[in-house]
Amino acid sequence: MSTFQVELKKVVDDSYEIEIGFQLQNKLIEDIKNGLVGKVKKFAVVTDSTVKELYADGILKGLVDAGYQADLFVFPAGEKSKTRKTKEDVEDAMLAKGYRRDCCIIAVGGGVVTDLAGFVAGTFGRGVPFINYATTLLAAADASVGGKTAVDTPLATNLIGLFNQPEKVYIDIAAWRTLPERQVVSGLAETIKHACLARADFFEYLNENMDSILALDKDACEHIAKVNCEVKYEVVMKDELESGLREVLNLGHTVGRAIETVSDYKLLHGEAVAIGLVAEVMLAYKLGHVTADERNAVIALLQKAKLPTEIPEYIDREALVKKLYTDKKVRDGKLRFVIQKGIGDVVEFEEGVFATPIEESVAREIIMGM
Amino acid sequence: MSTFQVELKKVVDDSYEIEIGFQLQNKLIEDIKNGLVGKVKKFAVVTDSTVKELYADGILKGLVDAGYQADLFVFPAGEKSKTRKTKEDVEDAMLAKGYRRDCCIIAVGGGVVTDLAGFVAGTFGRGVPFINYATTLLAAADASVGGKTAVDTPLATNLIGLFNQPEKVYIDIAAWRTLPERQVVSGLAETIKHACLARADFFEYLNENMDSILALDKDACEHIAKVNCEVKYEVVMKDELESGLREVLNLGHTVGRAIETVSDYKLLHGEAVAIGLVAEVMLAYKLGHVTADERNAVIALLQKAKLPTEIPEYIDREALVKKLYTDKKVRDGKLRFVIQKGIGDVVEFEEGVFATPIEESVAREIIMGM
Repeated sequence: MSTFQVELKKVVDDSYEIEIGFQLQNKLIEDIKNGLVGKVKKFAVVTDSTVKELYADGILKGLVDAGYQADLFVFPAGEKSKTRKTKEDVEDAMLAKGYRRDCCIIAVGGGVVTDLAGFVAGTFGRGVPFINYATTLLAAADASVGGKTAVDTPLATNLIGLFNQPEKVYIDIAAWRTLPERQVVSGLAETIKHACLARADFFEYLNENMDSILALDKDACEHIAKVNCEVKYEVVMKDELESGLREVLNLGHTVGRAIETVSDYKLLHGEAVAIGLVAEVMLAYKLGHVTADERNAVIALLQKAKLPTEIPEYIDREALVKKLYTDKKVRDGKLRFVIQKGIGDVVEFEEGVFATPIEESVAREIIMGM
Repeated sequence: MSTFQVELKKVVDDSYEIEIGFQLQNKLIEDIKNGLVGKVKKFAVVTDSTVKELYADGILKGLVDAGYQADLFVFPAGEKSKTRKTKEDVEDAMLAKGYRRDCCIIAVGGGVVTDLAGFVAGTFGRGVPFINYATTLLAAADASVGGKTAVDTPLATNLIGLFNQPEKVYIDIAAWRTLPERQVVSGLAETIKHACLARADFFEYLNENMDSILALDKDACEHIAKVNCEVKYEVVMKDELESGLREVLNLGHTVGRAIETVSDYKLLHGEAVAIGLVAEVMLAYKLGHVTADERNAVIALLQKAKLPTEIPEYIDREALVKKLYTDKKVRDGKLRFVIQKGIGDVVEFEEGVFATPIEESVAREIIMGM
């Protein structure tokens, strides 16, 4: 018997820049010309059927005009496209067009596109560089920091994927104006979540400026995009592999994700999260971690943002309670929730543990009452 | 416009141990009890239909007897199982059995199993730990060092995957005795390749001890397993992302992989590589990098190992020449080969570049003459 030691200790630098601005297509092309991804000359622009005409076509043209080889890879818009099958289709289309390991993927779109394209990039040729060009508020709030990429499967949301950091993220606020209002509003749920869990001052800002935000005022949008990045960065940096602290980002998501699934995606992710935030702030109130005023303020802010705050009639409450158990925070068969503490903080259950075990009967009571 | 810098510099330690020995099942269970993968209590044992009864059943029993939750995930043996579909099937079966992020995958089998299971581990729950229990010489030579995992697609071999390092590798030499002779012999091709490209002394050892090796003498097997690890380690460590030096491991593989595909996998990987080694040493001779004696010695050693050294009659030579262009070393439409230099070295074409551009007519002449 003999052993052989493989030494693999090294310094990895995955640092990158997020650029927030108004119409950044030309900036993207300039950055590439200036060596953002080294000498790469082939670009796979991955996008969905909605964003294609609005943004991806223009970026493709910019790349081609600049002398690069570039092709579009388009899949149908919507959460239902976030599957292994779509990933396979994109891969096969790239292979058929001769893409190999010397390419870069540019994801142009919202969270579904950046999640999926980032995952494709992580396993294509065992990893090629990718750039995120985020066109939605939700992508700005959710997909720009943290490196999470994934697809859904029939049995689980976001469970097949990997951590993969982009070369750069562009958050184009101009793109938000092309979104249906329902999408913009949906994106605000994660923004409000960030305020609830980490930033009382930002909660105030949102309260005072919601009209400008809904009117997509440039400065207001830039501010919320930036604070979203800040909050996620602070949380994610301290806990890159989501062992403890990162769970705070699950505020509103235990109930939210369950509702999203039980609604069969009739509710947008943000809408479901908004309802989840209400359920979970009511739970926090019940447990004595927020006052009645704070609870009401959260609900009022969500309403001001035109987000839903009640569980729709058509949702089967029993199915919803049952669905809570598919949450990834469940441990040893027990439900665990992130509990808001006042405005701008969350309960630390034990040192480094931010999810609190909750009896099903308690969760059930909240849900039945909504 | 504003920018936000995400700092992600860190030290990563993926070091691991390779244990080479005779019947290591109990050692595996002991290591797990002693904290090899921390507090993980759920083990997904991934294997193929051949290895299941020979080894995986026993390992499963060992885990269950030790009080762990463990399940078998079995797919049909053979290279044709190395697909995204098989990966999906394993994932879905794991999800259906309630596996989430708190599990460890144990790959029990040859290269196909370790490649596939390592890839599953890399994306299941965005990455769970995995252990390789290698039961073939080929896996010992090829899959134990380097962290390469992948599946094949209709358009490309090994192009969808990722770099993923195991927690530990076990090379069980006893398992080689359960293999059909054709499999053992096939595995020797990579071993001989390692000797040709890096170790003249090992080439001599193989020449002198081939009978003991083919009789699966314990000491001889342990020695070749160890040298295989050493050679791969030296090459791979100096070039972890296969940009330059690692290409030397492609010796024999430009022609070899093409033959393997054109034969529609009637030839085993090692058999195809053996023929590829012959073609490429003939090319090296033609270019003046090996003597006639050295060329003959390589061919003689392959024959001594009972490996094929001629292109089978049924292979369409024209299709083979055409297939060379799907090799991943092709650059700007030009074929590139790793060229052997004497015994135990390869040609460095330019500083840090170990693949030499070769005219199609030159490659064609070799192939047509075989």
